Amino acid sequence: MDRGTAASPGTPHDHERASTPPPSRGSGRVALTPHPDRLLPPDPTRRGIARRLYDSVRDLPLISPHGHVEARLLATDEPFTDPASLLVTPDHYITRLLHAHGVPLPRLGLRDSADGAAPAAPREVWRTFCEHWHLFLGTASRGWLEAELHDVLGVTVQPSADTADELFDEITARLREPEFRPRALHDSFGIAALATTDDPADDLSHHAALADDPSWSGRVLPTFRPDRHLDATAPGWSAALDDLAAASGIDTGDYDGLVRALENRREHFRAHGATATDHSAPDARMAFLDRDRAQRLFAEVKAGTASAEDARLLSQQLLGEMARMSSEDGMVMALHTGSRRNHHPGTARRFGPDTGHDIPLQAEFTRALQPMLERFGTNPRFQTVLFTLDETVFSRELAPLAGFYPSVYLGAPWWFLDAPRAMHRFRDAVTETAGFYRNAGFIDDTRGFCSIPARHDTARRVDAAHLAGLVAEHVISEDDAAVVIRDLHDLQPKRAFRL
Amino acid sequence: MDRGTAASPGTPHDHERASTPPPSRGSGRVALTPHPDRLLPPDPTRRGIARRLYDSVRDLPLISPHGHVEARLLATDEPFTDPASLLVTPDHYITRLLHAHGVPLPRLGLRDSADGAAPAAPREVWRTFCEHWHLFLGTASRGWLEAELHDVLGVTVQPSADTADELFDEITARLREPEFRPRALHDSFGIAALATTDDPADDLSHHAALADDPSWSGRVLPTFRPDRHLDATAPGWSAALDDLAAASGIDTGDYDGLVRALENRREHFRAHGATATDHSAPDARMAFLDRDRAQRLFAEVKAGTASAEDARLLSQQLLGEMARMSSEDGMVMALHTGSRRNHHPGTARRFGPDTGHDIPLQAEFTRALQPMLERFGTNPRFQTVLFTLDETVFSRELAPLAGFYPSVYLGAPWWFLDAPRAMHRFRDAVTETAGFYRNAGFIDDTRGFCSIPARHDTARRVDAAHLAGLVAEHVISEDDAAVVIRDLHDLQPKRAFRL
Amino acid sequence: MDRGTAASPGTPHDHERASTPPPSRGSGRVALTPHPDRLLPPDPTRRGIARRLYDSVRDLPLISPHGHVEARLLATDEPFTDPASLLVTPDHYITRLLHAHGVPLPRLGLRDSADGAAPAAPREVWRTFCEHWHLFLGTASRGWLEAELHDVLGVTVQPSADTADELFDEITARLREPEFRPRALHDSFGIAALATTDDPADDLSHHAALADDPSWSGRVLPTFRPDRHLDATAPGWSAALDDLAAASGIDTGDYDGLVRALENRREHFRAHGATATDHSAPDARMAFLDRDRAQRLFAEVKAGTASAEDARLLSQQLLGEMARMSSEDGMVMALHTGSRRNHHPGTARRFGPDTGHDIPLQAEFTRALQPMLERFGTNPRFQTVLFTLDETVFSRELAPLAGFYPSVYLGAPWWFLDAPRAMHRFRDAVTETAGFYRNAGFIDDTRGFCSIPARHDTARRVDAAHLAGLVAEHVISEDDAAVVIRDLHDLQPKRAFRL
Repeated sequence: MDRGTAASPGTPHDHERASTPPPSRGSGRVALTPHPDRLLPPDPTRRGIARRLYDSVRDLPLISPHGHVEARLLATDEPFTDPASLLVTPDHYITRLLHAHGVPLPRLGLRDSADGAAPAAPREVWRTFCEHWHLFLGTASRGWLEAELHDVLGVTVQPSADTADELFDEITARLREPEFRPRALHDSFGIAALATTDDPADDLSHHAALADDPSWSGRVLPTFRPDRHLDATAPGWSAALDDLAAASGIDTGDYDGLVRALENRREHFRAHGATATDHSAPDARMAFLDRDRAQRLFAEVKAGTASAEDARLLSQQLLGEMARMSSEDGMVMALHTGSRRNHHPGTARRFGPDTGHDIPLQAEFTRALQPMLERFGTNPRFQTVLFTLDETVFSRELAPLAGFYPSVYLGAPWWFLDAPRAMHRFRDAVTETAGFYRNAGFIDDTRGFCSIPARHDTARRVDAAHLAGLVAEHVISEDDAAVVIRDLHDLQPKRAFRL
Repeated sequence: MDRGTAASPGTPHDHERASTPPPSRGSGRVALTPHPDRLLPPDPTRRGIARRLYDSVRDLPLISPHGHVEARLLATDEPFTDPASLLVTPDHYITRLLHAHGVPLPRLGLRDSADGAAPAAPREVWRTFCEHWHLFLGTASRGWLEAELHDVLGVTVQPSADTADELFDEITARLREPEFRPRALHDSFGIAALATTDDPADDLSHHAALADDPSWSGRVLPTFRPDRHLDATAPGWSAALDDLAAASGIDTGDYDGLVRALENRREHFRAHGATATDHSAPDARMAFLDRDRAQRLFAEVKAGTASAEDARLLSQQLLGEMARMSSEDGMVMALHTGSRRNHHPGTARRFGPDTGHDIPLQAEFTRALQPMLERFGTNPRFQTVLFTLDETVFSRELAPLAGFYPSVYLGAPWWFLDAPRAMHRFRDAVTETAGFYRNAGFIDDTRGFCSIPARHDTARRVDAAHLAGLVAEHVISEDDAAVVIRDLHDLQPKRAFRL
Repeated sequence: MDRGTAASPGTPHDHERASTPPPSRGSGRVALTPHPDRLLPPDPTRRGIARRLYDSVRDLPLISPHGHVEARLLATDEPFTDPASLLVTPDHYITRLLHAHGVPLPRLGLRDSADGAAPAAPREVWRTFCEHWHLFLGTASRGWLEAELHDVLGVTVQPSADTADELFDEITARLREPEFRPRALHDSFGIAALATTDDPADDLSHHAALADDPSWSGRVLPTFRPDRHLDATAPGWSAALDDLAAASGIDTGDYDGLVRALENRREHFRAHGATATDHSAPDARMAFLDRDRAQRLFAEVKAGTASAEDARLLSQQLLGEMARMSSEDGMVMALHTGSRRNHHPGTARRFGPDTGHDIPLQAEFTRALQPMLERFGTNPRFQTVLFTLDETVFSRELAPLAGFYPSVYLGAPWWFLDAPRAMHRFRDAVTETAGFYRNAGFIDDTRGFCSIPARHDTARRVDAAHLAGLVAEHVISEDDAAVVIRDLHDLQPKRAFRL
């Protein structure tokens, strides 16, 4: 091992890690045949029950109330180009684990803004991915990818060094066929409703175009995601307020203006079909200062004379305003909190945000949400869906809160937790306290359009497996389980997100 | 949706939530037939073992070392009146989940002190409950209720809108029969010991009456629960001290007087058979100030000149005195900590405490208990039973503490956690570190007298299922498992609570 | 119960706890026959798969990259003397649980420095242990002990009061036979590599003796464990620096000297084959002050003029230096953090440290490690293995960190968590996020040389059982599972610890 040149702090290393090569068994030719009973329990009693429950919901229309697919995709209906651009480069579940095994991000197609060099071409990216396929064994991503490759793209052989090129050619050719265009896939997936995630300054022109298109019959809803306009601690906050002013035609130079501009854009979103807002924040705390105090706080933060603590307080105040607005306009407030963003600053500087190093933090909801729930928790207009990356709050805080407050819905296992075993743990943790009917159902939360059916299918299989366990232990009857599983994938997301 | 009238902050809404109606499938006529093997594992090997283990303890006498049934119930032996007053209105497991589905509390029989209006009559309450029966699917409450309705009350049809009235009439008639009077049920349940929870100012006259009654042969013990006398942060503290002074005949106007009055009342409780004290607090911290400091602190808090922090410190000091007294008089100190009481103040103001919105908090015991365990942890007179609402401390803190300190017993899964899957998680989390013999056994912790046998039966089934898993994996022998399950439901609660 | 003499605070009580006698069922004569399929799943489908997977790795050489066996044991090859000295007295897993059941530590062979009295003789210790054998039912220790007694020592009857003497005689005789000498056992266990844990001031003469011994062909590596030299909050710190100065020949009277002395000793350890350092600390925080600030801080702490907070900061700074040195010399940095040491000071004073009352604390890694990982997380020379006693961080923090940073490996379940159910929970918690190939494999972490094969065998059985579950649910193929389980017990520990 060469110990000659020490790395500088903060610098990611764009070469293979020489000292600990990842196991490289990614060769050979093995059939790709996802088992029809995958994720169902192995013993015959439970498998039989689970299979019947799964069959009863397998083909239900997909309701996707939260995700990161863009309306443009369906508005323009441009074809996908190749498997690397479709499945690898944009999916930070994939790129992060390859990075952890020493693969530099440019080899996965990410552009390094520090050197401006072109990243690897799609075929090279795909080869790298296929060589490392075995590293995903046991992960949620592997399950989704197997289903996407097999069920959506018709692939029948496992990715490996030996099959990479033929798969690249085969998938690339298929993506040019008309039935693999986004709109055709949308219909074949059976998507009944698809919520996008959009900036308040967005004009929603793609949503409007779809609504005006007589050849399009799907339902694509925007979601109001104002994070960058509320986060007064971020460098880009001032620019965000300018964008909001431009979009709303309202001066955002003082607190009242900002509030009115946000109300204006919520109205715009509702006019385009939005039923929900979505919020990311380090934690769930909200402030409810009086208007004068808020005005002064805004002025100080804007002027750059406030402390970091004050900027954080202003952000919490603005999140509190969102809750207040939801209690008036009825938009469901989805809270996705509890992550330290951009944990590795060197990677963020060079490759941007959302590159796989947002790392969860301990969550706390009981104290954090009390001031908000004191105000709006029993208000029939107000509704919130709580997501977490910290499983410990499921039984300790979220199920008890959702088991009392009519406004609180339990968000589905999310992000690192949207995986089969984690879903089982979620059901185990919350059902005994809150039953099934305080759940918001499943969200796919995906950037990968083709992963939508695979993710919903996984959730349905896991719910079938879970309910089969309860039926086999005579906790609930199979008749009741059949009603519950249908409600979990139809009624509950509609109730929770007011679709 | 009507957006005309915005709700005021802090106001609970006493009407159905118009926007998100709960699923209303609560009609029809379905048999109620709890399966004899419910909660036992489905595969034949484990079920066979579990059934044998369960059969060996199914009919053991019930030991109930902690609960909220009142001695008055058995002293007066007055009949229960109707199923709503028996099963719905007083059970905040039930009322909270119905409230979460938009049912206003007065419709469940709770009186709103704000308007003074009469709440719904029992038959109406029962109808509301029956219509929403399916919302309890998968909850612990559903399991207990099915067993109560079927095994205790002889009901053979599921509650639903269609069966509500006939069930109301049937159960009401049955409750008038002599064998459904409290004492008769007590005997048929096979209760060997029943601990109540009592205020230090209570004269324990009902306990005395039972002890003096030659027609009564049961064992009903008081438990010393001094929360309101120790919580110097609460508005009612001063009044509580006056009550204590009246009961003890000792002036509680200074710290020493309060301490002596508490000692006096503990003696009174021991004279009536008490073996334990019980404590609720936000966390498990105790203070051990010197007597002078404590005197001054008391005086300042009493005079209203102390900070909130000082009042909290005084409360911790008084809890520390309880530990010290236990180390001298041998009363077992049960700690039930970790909840934020009355999370929704508007509901507490109108409907009182214990209305379903005490919400758990993160727990910490390692640091919090260190000062107390340093003093009393190896003192053979001292004994404590630790309960938690935060599952994360089971393997991290509680099992390690109980695995070293002879004075520390692991409290059973409690409150939101006294449910089948949570009990399995508890055993999984603690047994590998602390074995079976540092457990305090099961407590039913119930306000519902008729749920006592159902709760103990659930615990016995779960322990049988759990041990059957260990036997089937050849971790312990079936002979050993048979000894363990008997000890868990007989020897261990007696050891832990010194019965 | 005698209430005459109150115990003084802080005093452990060296007599049986009169009030709550432990269940004493430890008599009789029962065969000891560990089942060949123990810990494998009971249903036939999974058991068949698990047995095949287990068989494929059962006889793999043992790699032990972290533990507390001493090199002296193998260098001198002195025979063990008796079962109490071998299995009971030095194992704080055993002594702590017996202590929790009221057995005073001197009766287990520990010397009380307060009275200087001789502890019980080995035969007495063994009798006490055998009488309490049933208290270990369900614990990890019981499983290891059964395997040690049966597989290593040839015992065929369970310990009990009735068999204690015959077992003592039988084992004592066996330990005198040549094939039970440490080196012979080392070979029969199939140990391929054994890392010890050593103080930086150690001259490593036993390691050198083994390396120079032509009759010895094993691999015994030292591990650099500098805790007492880095912990500036401990009373013994100054003496530790003196030892370091003596060992390195470098003056440790200022910060630069201490840093150079540590670098010098790391070099010494590497020259004797060390590949890793190991660190215990209350938490994982590290500081990276500039050199001037560090110099001044050191001087103040050394002079006794610094605050407790400053001493803690200096400790964090020194841990940060360890990370920096690892990024340069490539030694793997193993972090074992999150415990409150010596929770019961009275026991520590009389019986010393490591007597069973180190109690875990809440862990936090996301924030704590950020400054270090910002500097070294993507440095190809740097590598760290993270262990925890707080299971909540597995899915929330550790798997996400190891799923991005190439330098971060997931430490195996450790200490209270190195038990079958806890291992299953670990795999469930991390695999879906990080796959199998970010794991560091298994460490036995034992002081008990004869428990090494039992502990590795347990881990292999649990991994076989776990993978069989995934195969039976068609998540991975049996072919893939067979590769994974081999890698987990061969490739992964070698990669993680750079063996």
